Amino acid sequence: MIKVGIIGATGYAGGELVRLLLGHKDAKICWYGSRSYVDEKYSSVYRNFFQIVDAKCLDDNMEALAKEADVIFTATPQGFCASMVNEGILSNAKVIDLSADFRIKDVAVYEEWYKIQHKSPEFLPEAVYGLCELNREAIKGARLIANPGCYPTCSILSIYPAVKEGLIDPDTIIIDAKSGTSGAGRGAKLPNLFCEVNENIKAYGVASHRHTPEIEEQLGLAAGRPLCLSFTPHLVPMNRGILVTAYASLKKEVSWEAVHEVYERYYEKEQFVRVLGKGECPETKWVEGSNYVDVGLQIDPRTGRLIMMGAMDNLVKGAAGQAVQNMNLLFGLPENEGLMQAPMFP
Amino acid sequence: MIKVGIIGATGYAGGELVRLLLGHKDAKICWYGSRSYVDEKYSSVYRNFFQIVDAKCLDDNMEALAKEADVIFTATPQGFCASMVNEGILSNAKVIDLSADFRIKDVAVYEEWYKIQHKSPEFLPEAVYGLCELNREAIKGARLIANPGCYPTCSILSIYPAVKEGLIDPDTIIIDAKSGTSGAGRGAKLPNLFCEVNENIKAYGVASHRHTPEIEEQLGLAAGRPLCLSFTPHLVPMNRGILVTAYASLKKEVSWEAVHEVYERYYEKEQFVRVLGKGECPETKWVEGSNYVDVGLQIDPRTGRLIMMGAMDNLVKGAAGQAVQNMNLLFGLPENEGLMQAPMFP
Amino acid sequence: MIKVGIIGATGYAGGELVRLLLGHKDAKICWYGSRSYVDEKYSSVYRNFFQIVDAKCLDDNMEALAKEADVIFTATPQGFCASMVNEGILSNAKVIDLSADFRIKDVAVYEEWYKIQHKSPEFLPEAVYGLCELNREAIKGARLIANPGCYPTCSILSIYPAVKEGLIDPDTIIIDAKSGTSGAGRGAKLPNLFCEVNENIKAYGVASHRHTPEIEEQLGLAAGRPLCLSFTPHLVPMNRGILVTAYASLKKEVSWEAVHEVYERYYEKEQFVRVLGKGECPETKWVEGSNYVDVGLQIDPRTGRLIMMGAMDNLVKGAAGQAVQNMNLLFGLPENEGLMQAPMFP
Amino acid sequence: MIKVGIIGATGYAGGELVRLLLGHKDAKICWYGSRSYVDEKYSSVYRNFFQIVDAKCLDDNMEALAKEADVIFTATPQGFCASMVNEGILSNAKVIDLSADFRIKDVAVYEEWYKIQHKSPEFLPEAVYGLCELNREAIKGARLIANPGCYPTCSILSIYPAVKEGLIDPDTIIIDAKSGTSGAGRGAKLPNLFCEVNENIKAYGVASHRHTPEIEEQLGLAAGRPLCLSFTPHLVPMNRGILVTAYASLKKEVSWEAVHEVYERYYEKEQFVRVLGKGECPETKWVEGSNYVDVGLQIDPRTGRLIMMGAMDNLVKGAAGQAVQNMNLLFGLPENEGLMQAPMFP
Repeated sequence: MIKVGIIGATGYAGGELVRLLLGHKDAKICWYGSRSYVDEKYSSVYRNFFQIVDAKCLDDNMEALAKEADVIFTATPQGFCASMVNEGILSNAKVIDLSADFRIKDVAVYEEWYKIQHKSPEFLPEAVYGLCELNREAIKGARLIANPGCYPTCSILSIYPAVKEGLIDPDTIIIDAKSGTSGAGRGAKLPNLFCEVNENIKAYGVASHRHTPEIEEQLGLAAGRPLCLSFTPHLVPMNRGILVTAYASLKKEVSWEAVHEVYERYYEKEQFVRVLGKGECPETKWVEGSNYVDVGLQIDPRTGRLIMMGAMDNLVKGAAGQAVQNMNLLFGLPENEGLMQAPMFP
Repeated sequence: MIKVGIIGATGYAGGELVRLLLGHKDAKICWYGSRSYVDEKYSSVYRNFFQIVDAKCLDDNMEALAKEADVIFTATPQGFCASMVNEGILSNAKVIDLSADFRIKDVAVYEEWYKIQHKSPEFLPEAVYGLCELNREAIKGARLIANPGCYPTCSILSIYPAVKEGLIDPDTIIIDAKSGTSGAGRGAKLPNLFCEVNENIKAYGVASHRHTPEIEEQLGLAAGRPLCLSFTPHLVPMNRGILVTAYASLKKEVSWEAVHEVYERYYEKEQFVRVLGKGECPETKWVEGSNYVDVGLQIDPRTGRLIMMGAMDNLVKGAAGQAVQNMNLLFGLPENEGLMQAPMFP
Repeated sequence: MIKVGIIGATGYAGGELVRLLLGHKDAKICWYGSRSYVDEKYSSVYRNFFQIVDAKCLDDNMEALAKEADVIFTATPQGFCASMVNEGILSNAKVIDLSADFRIKDVAVYEEWYKIQHKSPEFLPEAVYGLCELNREAIKGARLIANPGCYPTCSILSIYPAVKEGLIDPDTIIIDAKSGTSGAGRGAKLPNLFCEVNENIKAYGVASHRHTPEIEEQLGLAAGRPLCLSFTPHLVPMNRGILVTAYASLKKEVSWEAVHEVYERYYEKEQFVRVLGKGECPETKWVEGSNYVDVGLQIDPRTGRLIMMGAMDNLVKGAAGQAVQNMNLLFGLPENEGLMQAPMFP
Repeated sequence: MIKVGIIGATGYAGGELVRLLLGHKDAKICWYGSRSYVDEKYSSVYRNFFQIVDAKCLDDNMEALAKEADVIFTATPQGFCASMVNEGILSNAKVIDLSADFRIKDVAVYEEWYKIQHKSPEFLPEAVYGLCELNREAIKGARLIANPGCYPTCSILSIYPAVKEGLIDPDTIIIDAKSGTSGAGRGAKLPNLFCEVNENIKAYGVASHRHTPEIEEQLGLAAGRPLCLSFTPHLVPMNRGILVTAYASLKKEVSWEAVHEVYERYYEKEQFVRVLGKGECPETKWVEGSNYVDVGLQIDPRTGRLIMMGAMDNLVKGAAGQAVQNMNLLFGLPENEGLMQAPMFP
């Protein structure tokens, strides 16, 4: 039985980790870490766990936790994990960081987009970008996993095969993404109030969202050279779900079947990526509560563009589910353990 | 491995049965019955099951199904099950009817409220009302289970101990219930369109809803005499969830602690009924996707009334989850098999 | 042209006052008062007013405002208006208080339910409860109007005729009310976040909500004696709207037509109260954005109860619209001036 | 007083026409045309108009109506207006067609995208595309107005100045649009049910939506040559609102201020187009219920692209409001008569 500690267990991603781990055969949570709710019962913070979780919240002492746990999830604000992690912790426990601290290899890029100083760049080289479908083997041997961002997970999985196979011109990629509001976190801020979000849609972080360089780095690796793309997130009045609609110019005329065949080849052995059929568009509702990413493809022959669409639950495959998938790889378990729930509809 | 057939698998309750049974260790679905989608892939009707369920829809031939299945769930319109069920079917397979056909013992009451003729009243005596917390032992030996209605499940579990223990005057019970829209089914009707339901709340079926006599019958059994109550359902702009707010006059002055103690006594061994603490009100979101019913209690000393509140997922404990719970009892399995998911939040 | 000042213009009720007054032929806003946004452009707080309102927010100095304005609306927290109002202010300007400070005549009752000391009980006798349909003549001559609460407006208008005419037993009244989330205000609090409210319904303030004594006082006046009732509000995942479902025992058997005739008699000359026909239930969406209250009636012959239902926009008839209606009465204008918009659907 | 007839008064756009015209000083509705509800009271179809509109629905006889009305609005399915309109009708009454029948000048393009034969191409030359901000003078003298589509209105107004001034390369335009569900109409179809739309987002009509050629034609006129663009609509779980996020490559480096200055120049005299300030993104909620379009601009220097965003109420500026604006121009009234409502928030 793997002993699991969660730092930041009282955010939405932390709560989702708890939900998923409760259904995991080989893991047991030993530490519900929190900054704001220390000594309160975890089930008074998330009352869905009433009579299911009996533990109280502990603090966010990663050093102490590393001595008790086999693996630590940090579902914490940017900068926290980088400021805490050290050799002692990493030699005691695996660390799966759900923040952005170890996702970007170039520390200058990280500091420019996140506007904070990176406190432990010495661990960047060994950190593995935990997008299981791309980095499965590297993940298995890692000590420190950079769990991908929600938008990047959905964007990269939707676009990667087209870039890697040279179907599209990497300089023409435009990603228009839409997210449910749980992505904004559980902080009590005016723009996230029900009446401000409900019956409303808006773009935000236009040309400046911090997930941009993460997507660029990963797709650049696929392209074999750096690339620069447009990324625009939108806030949608729903709790969960990310939809990515990505556009790029095809390098040459190609049939839908040929593009589909490429995607099938990349993902046919992947349980959690489902490539949809001709004419089908992914919908966030069809993956809600599950670790699936649905990918749909459409060619626009009039403009010579490929439209790549991806749908995903931002809290599962976009955060906690992928983190559990990484944990399973780290500990040699079946990759889908604890993640086999079918999506919930409606 | 129990072989399961579902008649009416393409309604919302049918879809939820599939979701839950896919996570059940000892059951396997062998028949996805449908009237409208015969020969279509089930996963084209509910695309959440893409690459999870490969089967095509079969027809709703209960006779043929009974020869293949150990248990049949009928998630069908009122009157269907009563018109199909017969001795041959019942001797081949257990039947768990999610419609109202066998919930009410008095055929005249059924026919008056449902405005249809009951086609097989001869099976009413043996049918067991499948509210597991009340009728556990009877369920175990039954052939035909009347799976309770969604509103009745939440109402009865919220009120039962107070009636049974004589805390309240049964003639003063008023149930004000609120339901998510999945309770209205998947039929393409104008009042269920998004723009008609969203940003809206209304009562419906006032003083005439067909779940009324079902609640009255069960609470009457608790009271030891017939009773008559007010029941008003409302339609709420959300997918899932039922909230019951029930009012009744206390027979005598009593403390909150005393009432709570009664409820605790009734439900302390029940996994799926959670009695909340002082000052806590149940919320539908805290049970979403799970088989739990949360019950909260409040005394209003000024009016001498007890307010009993219950929250539940109408598609799980109010339909498919309870049906699986009944199946588990029928086949001697752990009652919570396939139902151990924690609620999903947010 | 009436010069209008608004204290608390940056709350939701304040914003709605601005929207309505912009369409009022005889009123002009001269003061957008705020505590938090002084010197900021009002249209940066509520961007719907971009290029419509050019003014900046001023402070909440009621004394200064009284010298500039003919009428002051206070859309402020409980206690503010009572702590500020004085003879000087009232002799310079009419005051329409949207808080609860002057709604309850008995200062002890106010202090018990609101847990604050009343700072100017000397003005309670002259304050007029501004429910126009009940107190029209008294309003016309007043200096200080207590604009009714949202729940009380909808509750009282739904129940008043039945009590006044002695159709129902006042001791049996139970009000189960449901409100959109704008009623909770624009404060950045965790329970009002989108993800906490969306897909959720709950009761709150059970047996303790502060609108209870206000309803009791007004219905008690109708009954000719004090009464005590149950009132339970619920939070619904929608922006606007209040639905009241009220129950009471009929004193004697009576036909729907007779009850309807009573309500028609009370409201036939009222533009803003619409009594629905037989079998019709009010829906909040049908009055959204307007000053209407829709009232529906149903008799339950089995239980001998009358079910009275009311639907209303909490920010219009429940707050800003009624305040404008009061202003119109105070200044001898047509009562519906600025309030003639038809409800918006969908 | 202008006598107005509405064919298709029982759809959502028809209902919105009624709402707006009820607040119009110089217009009076004389004909509520419908196919499905003939002889029913209009207020039983749209109960928001209870006690406001007393009329019954008439049929959709445009010939008869033309003799009674000064102007006819056709809010009807594609093909209807083209099949009915004739010289007799046009010599008796102005026609404002809210369908697509007269929006596209090239009949072959119309027939290819709409898959129906155009029944009166002889009127295409005289029909004026009723986007008031672009074609004001031509509209004033027209007999037949093609009221623009919802997506085209928002898209064109957001992009037009950049194309017209040659700021962007017209071959790089990508429009990612998001719409509330009222755009899908009031037909009782499964995909528009509450539970299918709520908590969900999806693209539809990818690379094939029929508004594409309409946008291309108008922006082509601005560019001075034909152009071809990508247009992808999405369905959002909200009632009203369209958000357009459009991308195009800048022809040369330019400052935000310079782009903004161009937009200001085009729209500074337009009441209904509001150009937002630096860093501001439009939100659909800020224009709800009003005839405004909010336009925001952002330059992405990294990719050399301009991001143009527009927000609008699809039923007002995207349908009924713009139709009334056209009517005002046709009859020499102030262009904003009946359209001066401030947006409603929240």
